Amino acid sequence: MKELHEECGVFGIYASSVQDVGNATYYGLYALQHRGQDSAGIVVNDGGVFTVRKDLGLVGDVFDKDSLLDLGEGKIALGHVRYGTAGTATRENAQPMVVSHVKGNLAIAYNGSLINNGELRNQLELEGSIFHSTTDTEVITYIITKERLKQPSIEHAVFEALKKLKGAYSLVLMSPTKLIAARDPHGFRPLCYGKKDDGSYVIASESCALDAVGAKLVRDVAPGEVIVIDPMGIRSFKENCGTCKMSSCVFEFVYFARPDSVVDGCSVHQARVNAGRYLAKSSPCDADVVIGVPDSGLDAAIGYANESGIPYEIGFLKNKYIGRTFIFPNQKDREDQVRKKLNPISSVVKGKRVVMVDDSIVRGTTCARIVRLLREAGATEVHMRVSSPPFLNPCYYGTDIPSRECLIACNHSIEEIRDIIGVDSLGYLEYEDVKKIATGDGCKGFCTACFDGQYPTEIPDRTLKNRFEVKINIDKKKERH
Amino acid sequence: MKELHEECGVFGIYASSVQDVGNATYYGLYALQHRGQDSAGIVVNDGGVFTVRKDLGLVGDVFDKDSLLDLGEGKIALGHVRYGTAGTATRENAQPMVVSHVKGNLAIAYNGSLINNGELRNQLELEGSIFHSTTDTEVITYIITKERLKQPSIEHAVFEALKKLKGAYSLVLMSPTKLIAARDPHGFRPLCYGKKDDGSYVIASESCALDAVGAKLVRDVAPGEVIVIDPMGIRSFKENCGTCKMSSCVFEFVYFARPDSVVDGCSVHQARVNAGRYLAKSSPCDADVVIGVPDSGLDAAIGYANESGIPYEIGFLKNKYIGRTFIFPNQKDREDQVRKKLNPISSVVKGKRVVMVDDSIVRGTTCARIVRLLREAGATEVHMRVSSPPFLNPCYYGTDIPSRECLIACNHSIEEIRDIIGVDSLGYLEYEDVKKIATGDGCKGFCTACFDGQYPTEIPDRTLKNRFEVKINIDKKKERH
Amino acid sequence: MKELHEECGVFGIYASSVQDVGNATYYGLYALQHRGQDSAGIVVNDGGVFTVRKDLGLVGDVFDKDSLLDLGEGKIALGHVRYGTAGTATRENAQPMVVSHVKGNLAIAYNGSLINNGELRNQLELEGSIFHSTTDTEVITYIITKERLKQPSIEHAVFEALKKLKGAYSLVLMSPTKLIAARDPHGFRPLCYGKKDDGSYVIASESCALDAVGAKLVRDVAPGEVIVIDPMGIRSFKENCGTCKMSSCVFEFVYFARPDSVVDGCSVHQARVNAGRYLAKSSPCDADVVIGVPDSGLDAAIGYANESGIPYEIGFLKNKYIGRTFIFPNQKDREDQVRKKLNPISSVVKGKRVVMVDDSIVRGTTCARIVRLLREAGATEVHMRVSSPPFLNPCYYGTDIPSRECLIACNHSIEEIRDIIGVDSLGYLEYEDVKKIATGDGCKGFCTACFDGQYPTEIPDRTLKNRFEVKINIDKKKERH
Amino acid sequence: MKELHEECGVFGIYASSVQDVGNATYYGLYALQHRGQDSAGIVVNDGGVFTVRKDLGLVGDVFDKDSLLDLGEGKIALGHVRYGTAGTATRENAQPMVVSHVKGNLAIAYNGSLINNGELRNQLELEGSIFHSTTDTEVITYIITKERLKQPSIEHAVFEALKKLKGAYSLVLMSPTKLIAARDPHGFRPLCYGKKDDGSYVIASESCALDAVGAKLVRDVAPGEVIVIDPMGIRSFKENCGTCKMSSCVFEFVYFARPDSVVDGCSVHQARVNAGRYLAKSSPCDADVVIGVPDSGLDAAIGYANESGIPYEIGFLKNKYIGRTFIFPNQKDREDQVRKKLNPISSVVKGKRVVMVDDSIVRGTTCARIVRLLREAGATEVHMRVSSPPFLNPCYYGTDIPSRECLIACNHSIEEIRDIIGVDSLGYLEYEDVKKIATGDGCKGFCTACFDGQYPTEIPDRTLKNRFEVKINIDKKKERH
Repeated sequence: MKELHEECGVFGIYASSVQDVGNATYYGLYALQHRGQDSAGIVVNDGGVFTVRKDLGLVGDVFDKDSLLDLGEGKIALGHVRYGTAGTATRENAQPMVVSHVKGNLAIAYNGSLINNGELRNQLELEGSIFHSTTDTEVITYIITKERLKQPSIEHAVFEALKKLKGAYSLVLMSPTKLIAARDPHGFRPLCYGKKDDGSYVIASESCALDAVGAKLVRDVAPGEVIVIDPMGIRSFKENCGTCKMSSCVFEFVYFARPDSVVDGCSVHQARVNAGRYLAKSSPCDADVVIGVPDSGLDAAIGYANESGIPYEIGFLKNKYIGRTFIFPNQKDREDQVRKKLNPISSVVKGKRVVMVDDSIVRGTTCARIVRLLREAGATEVHMRVSSPPFLNPCYYGTDIPSRECLIACNHSIEEIRDIIGVDSLGYLEYEDVKKIATGDGCKGFCTACFDGQYPTEIPDRTLKNRFEVKINIDKKKERH
Repeated sequence: MKELHEECGVFGIYASSVQDVGNATYYGLYALQHRGQDSAGIVVNDGGVFTVRKDLGLVGDVFDKDSLLDLGEGKIALGHVRYGTAGTATRENAQPMVVSHVKGNLAIAYNGSLINNGELRNQLELEGSIFHSTTDTEVITYIITKERLKQPSIEHAVFEALKKLKGAYSLVLMSPTKLIAARDPHGFRPLCYGKKDDGSYVIASESCALDAVGAKLVRDVAPGEVIVIDPMGIRSFKENCGTCKMSSCVFEFVYFARPDSVVDGCSVHQARVNAGRYLAKSSPCDADVVIGVPDSGLDAAIGYANESGIPYEIGFLKNKYIGRTFIFPNQKDREDQVRKKLNPISSVVKGKRVVMVDDSIVRGTTCARIVRLLREAGATEVHMRVSSPPFLNPCYYGTDIPSRECLIACNHSIEEIRDIIGVDSLGYLEYEDVKKIATGDGCKGFCTACFDGQYPTEIPDRTLKNRFEVKINIDKKKERH
Repeated sequence: MKELHEECGVFGIYASSVQDVGNATYYGLYALQHRGQDSAGIVVNDGGVFTVRKDLGLVGDVFDKDSLLDLGEGKIALGHVRYGTAGTATRENAQPMVVSHVKGNLAIAYNGSLINNGELRNQLELEGSIFHSTTDTEVITYIITKERLKQPSIEHAVFEALKKLKGAYSLVLMSPTKLIAARDPHGFRPLCYGKKDDGSYVIASESCALDAVGAKLVRDVAPGEVIVIDPMGIRSFKENCGTCKMSSCVFEFVYFARPDSVVDGCSVHQARVNAGRYLAKSSPCDADVVIGVPDSGLDAAIGYANESGIPYEIGFLKNKYIGRTFIFPNQKDREDQVRKKLNPISSVVKGKRVVMVDDSIVRGTTCARIVRLLREAGATEVHMRVSSPPFLNPCYYGTDIPSRECLIACNHSIEEIRDIIGVDSLGYLEYEDVKKIATGDGCKGFCTACFDGQYPTEIPDRTLKNRFEVKINIDKKKERH
Repeated sequence: MKELHEECGVFGIYASSVQDVGNATYYGLYALQHRGQDSAGIVVNDGGVFTVRKDLGLVGDVFDKDSLLDLGEGKIALGHVRYGTAGTATRENAQPMVVSHVKGNLAIAYNGSLINNGELRNQLELEGSIFHSTTDTEVITYIITKERLKQPSIEHAVFEALKKLKGAYSLVLMSPTKLIAARDPHGFRPLCYGKKDDGSYVIASESCALDAVGAKLVRDVAPGEVIVIDPMGIRSFKENCGTCKMSSCVFEFVYFARPDSVVDGCSVHQARVNAGRYLAKSSPCDADVVIGVPDSGLDAAIGYANESGIPYEIGFLKNKYIGRTFIFPNQKDREDQVRKKLNPISSVVKGKRVVMVDDSIVRGTTCARIVRLLREAGATEVHMRVSSPPFLNPCYYGTDIPSRECLIACNHSIEEIRDIIGVDSLGYLEYEDVKKIATGDGCKGFCTACFDGQYPTEIPDRTLKNRFEVKINIDKKKERH
């Protein structure tokens, strides 16, 4: 019921021997499924022969026993899950992208968003390039393969190609013999790698995917770093590191990443508990019980309860069977969809003053409905606490956020919002506090542009952007299937 | 990952006017889905014309927009979800059962298990009856329709027919003009009814289904009571009430029912919290953090934490995308299936002495794997607390429990179990305490036969039982489709 | 593109040993698919244990490799394909019907239509019987199982039960140890049996199904005969034979049966060629070429050409890929659907006077469109010849024919029809000739009621019929799923 | 049951106004389905915005009501059906190919096979091109788009690009405003265009697709011609015409094309009847009846019968329900697959000396089985007549023919073949006669390389070919999905 979306999850494995790397990738993608539910893909590399399967749908829709078997065994594999903004969730845009070029096969899985995508694509088209998709990935693939004609190795080509890219990218790519990972110098999106007991290396957007395949987290890929894994072992290229201030997305900690992941050295669950604690300090409340909105508000609710001393309780039953097949035959039913998914536990809230914690308020409508449910269940007061600051600006670095017209905080004061959602009091996490919630060694700077509008890079020029958007819109229509 | 199964959920609605009673039933069944995942069915009654759809699968598999539309509108509807023991999950056995007899159409939805099913079926066959399924429901249907030839009304027929049934039954049935509910005199299985603002009556296995359709719980159907709803209003037949001691299934409170339901006057969530509290008193522990095994151990963990003063935390991330499409291509992967579904949050357990609460231990294998995960994540001690007594005896009243050979508590001492699952200490809820956890007005006696072997009724005779089982086995094979 | 429908095909096999009788039945049903496209089912009998699979759809929709494997091996099997009139093509009505009664399992596959279905069902309901379907088959099943309580064997029960049935029936039934076939005394519907080299017996609606499983046709089941196959061999009960005049359906020869079948001793193809020859004699024509409308008019066209001396040619290409998935997105396209399926071969008809032969004209619209196509392709004259007399009366014996309002011959003179379909001349087979087309030893009398209104039995009384139809209509609605 | 495959069918429409060009293309592809059953695709062009849908499967699998609706309306559309040799029937290789380049969108549908595909692809890769598929089409697309940078219009670019291609191609392409058709100078594959009454132009591989959409055949596209249709009307570029001798594929007339099509001015049905006539002259026979093997032998059988004076008859019933869902659970059943699909009509062949006509013998196994069926049905003699010369050489121009090891005529004398298939006499069409069967104005020369090894072009060099094949094999594995 959240309207914010991470755009992708990437996974790569370089095994110690030829084995069922496709299966490992399948498990890794299941652990990254929260980062993209529109398409999924796996490529297995067996001695330079690439076998690929990708399609629209969840990992469990795209892969079954037979299709995993068809992928065969190999030494290297790549996987991807994708969320596409409206109209771009097409089969053509599904990743990993797999192409053959003069040096053989190449596959790329990518998470991020380029600022200069439009310029790069224009230039490539003028050189005679043809495009099968609307993705940044195809642009990156061209730049790398063209660079490869000039460079002695694929890693040199990648290294040179990345210098031309502006924006956010965490990518994993696979040549016939190498697995390569790269993270942009700002470190917008997470990327880490780990190792299994048998010596296999695993690269993933989040450490929870390493856990899923039994790999131990070694460390995060540093902003600007390129890591190469091949028969000679693992090597790091750090020449591009430190060229700009780290600006990792703080919303990964607030909402996107899975709570059991460790990102840039910090437990995501702990960061959310910390957010709840800061919130309890800055927005205290006289109440009987603290509850979280499942699932995104639970961690911060624990923090709020512990800091405030108000008991933590389970306030809602979330119907775990309600998935994509659940429907609302009538419009009036749809309006009450929250009720079918979340049911308050009345014995917990009846006659109580309730603190309800969630990670954010986007449009406010779902929130208002949940509050009404609590009151119907007998809560005497409902105090809402939000474990992030108000959400005010668009993101150009790989997440999908509704337009400003839809963002309640862009159009209303906090008092108005309180009134709209119908709570007795409303408190947001302080802007100063949001940068403190993640405390890992690698947490050296955050992008908080969605809260403060301070973009770490230039942003797409209005004119160029418009031109580009028109083109995209045309393409969107084209690919609606 | 639990090996215990409730066998059915029932739902009925008698609307104040002709309306989309099929949709309401659809929502009600979604709320009861935890009571049966093998088949689902809805019958809509429009002036005596019954439109039915039922099939194997979850509610969301069986019904889509078109099929709900095809059900049409009506004044009365019946719904059912079913769990079938191995081999009986067939299309023929899907409910509600719909037949036509001399007085028109009749539909029945049933939750329970008859002790004297074999005798009744034999007798009916000797009178020339033919059977299309292996369900108790078909036996009950015959007894009611045959009684109907002698009685002045369907409710009289039901009332007389029930006198011949021995065992557990909570049933809802629908004639062309009436909706009838009945609960056996022991009250083994829950059944309640509620009312909507527009005057519609709703009957369901659990109150969470009333919430899902916006009905307010009026009260539970009393053990032995028959309730009739027709154009003249609602009437109760209580002549059979009090003929025996109430013996409602305590495992509904421990595990089967949804925590947001209120059964026999008691909040299920609260009963579980109570179980956690009793457990903290009888099996205290010196530890740093209390966590629950999702989802069944969470409520009791809260109770344990509150009573013991040890902080409650979220110990595991449960992968919400892992459903029926998730597969394990290799056997060795399958052995590690727990890992893919549950991942410990290491920041919570690392370096900590952990109390892990769950509602029961069945075979012990899943449990042992979870404990190993916690230790790998850095827990220094793991203390398991189980919010029910050891599970020792089969159930003859409508739940599916593995055979004694598989039940770890039947074959090992508690110390052996502790050793097998690899915990530092192990505590079960005291047998005396389990009867105290549910504290509602209607909680006047429990069936605890699974813990103590004290069956409230005679149980099927060995000879008869064997004969019956052979017949069933033959039928099982027949219906494997 | 024909609006006349045979209602069922039946198949049974009694093998010489336990073997893959399910596979044989599958092939047999494929050969009988033209007799019913709405549902298909197979029951395999392995020592009294029946394994069944049946569902809506073509044989190839209902069965795949896994489901055939699941049927297992056995000694006896039964199969059925069904065409259901509007509203009765439901899963409940799919056959074979499989029930268990006091003597074990019983399965029945049935082709026909009872005249006294309504009376029999009423009486059974008054005795306490419940009905799960609206089929004649369930009525027959009850009558047989009730009779079984009084008779010493299943064959005696069948024999006695059949005495109560009025109308058309060709049925095959299977008890735990026996395969039984029966054909009504009028012999309305075909039924024959054959033998394989390994000693297995096969019973089927048409001999083409015997060919499909490598069995040699022994002979037709005689009108009124009951045949029993069990471990003692094959036995015939002929006491009911000759109780009335044979009245086999002449439309089986004209259209329903497959041309490669031999029915009651006569080749169906040859009967159609004969019809063409009679037609050439009674309705000669001065023309350049004779063509048939695929596929139903091809055989008679050969006969017409041979008799008349006008050369036979292939006049149309029928698109073999156009099946059930072919759609007409727009209404105006639908009107031209004939064009997508049949394309005239212009080099054959251009500048020619064409005789076009088909087996019947039902509504006339399709026919008119085909004629226009021929003229557009350059035919200078089109002379239509129909290889049966005009179609004037409803059928009560198991075929589905549009109501009189839709039958063009009920509402127009031949001259008017000629004008409506736009041909230069129109000739029907003479009524006297239709009885002569089938010349086999077993062809001792035909039902030609659809042409002459002379029904061989009483027909359902108007009052009773209406009452019955109302009931059916209610049930139809009920079972719309 | 034929092992020879045409590789593609193409369709394009330029409508007189914005309309449902997607629907028209759908009907056109259904008429061309015999030219490719592996994948299907449609692209609709609405003012430069391309909407595409393509996938593996038959036209009816890929498109349903919703997907046709999603294609929207437009002024131009392109369609393609494809047969892929083993391993290349992948989703990536499905056509039409749609790309965006510097001048906007471009879509191409292609039937043929390039001789110099390997060289061209190598050169493109060295210039930095990346490939998503293994098709000739992607190579052609690159060459056209690169040429487009240098040329003033898309038609100039196409015209220049085609000069670089060697081999067989009939292609249709679509720019934002133009529909362009081109046929190689040898005219290997057919291509024609027509016009509808409303002024819309239609281009298709065969005229039967024009019939299906109500367009009248104007003429064939001449070998070497490029036709451009845009808002200014239709224009022809014939500079490349006549640069080499016409060599249209004679097997289109023998087997590939649909009998109702007119190719290069000659009716395909008539060409086959002619083949039958020549065969009757060169291989006469003393027999009672002439039958054709459905469907490919029927036309020639008519010709044989007419020329010889032996009566034509319908010898087999072909089961029209046996499609892709039909399975053979057991290996021994598979061996008898012919029996399930074709059943002799015994009344036609019993006691007769039969002439059986088919268009070709490939491996001989199917043929031998059919002959045995005829003998079992009572034929006293079976004389086989083949309406083409023996098949001896591979095709490099766009058809898929088994390797020489599998071709019976490469390894056996005619007498040996006669013996293997078990006929009393065997006659092939004379090599001299095959060039005479098609008699249209446009039939100015045929490629008969499969019979005589006289290839109209250089053929791929062994070394280059091998290198290329290895590459393809790698890619095949890659794309197995």
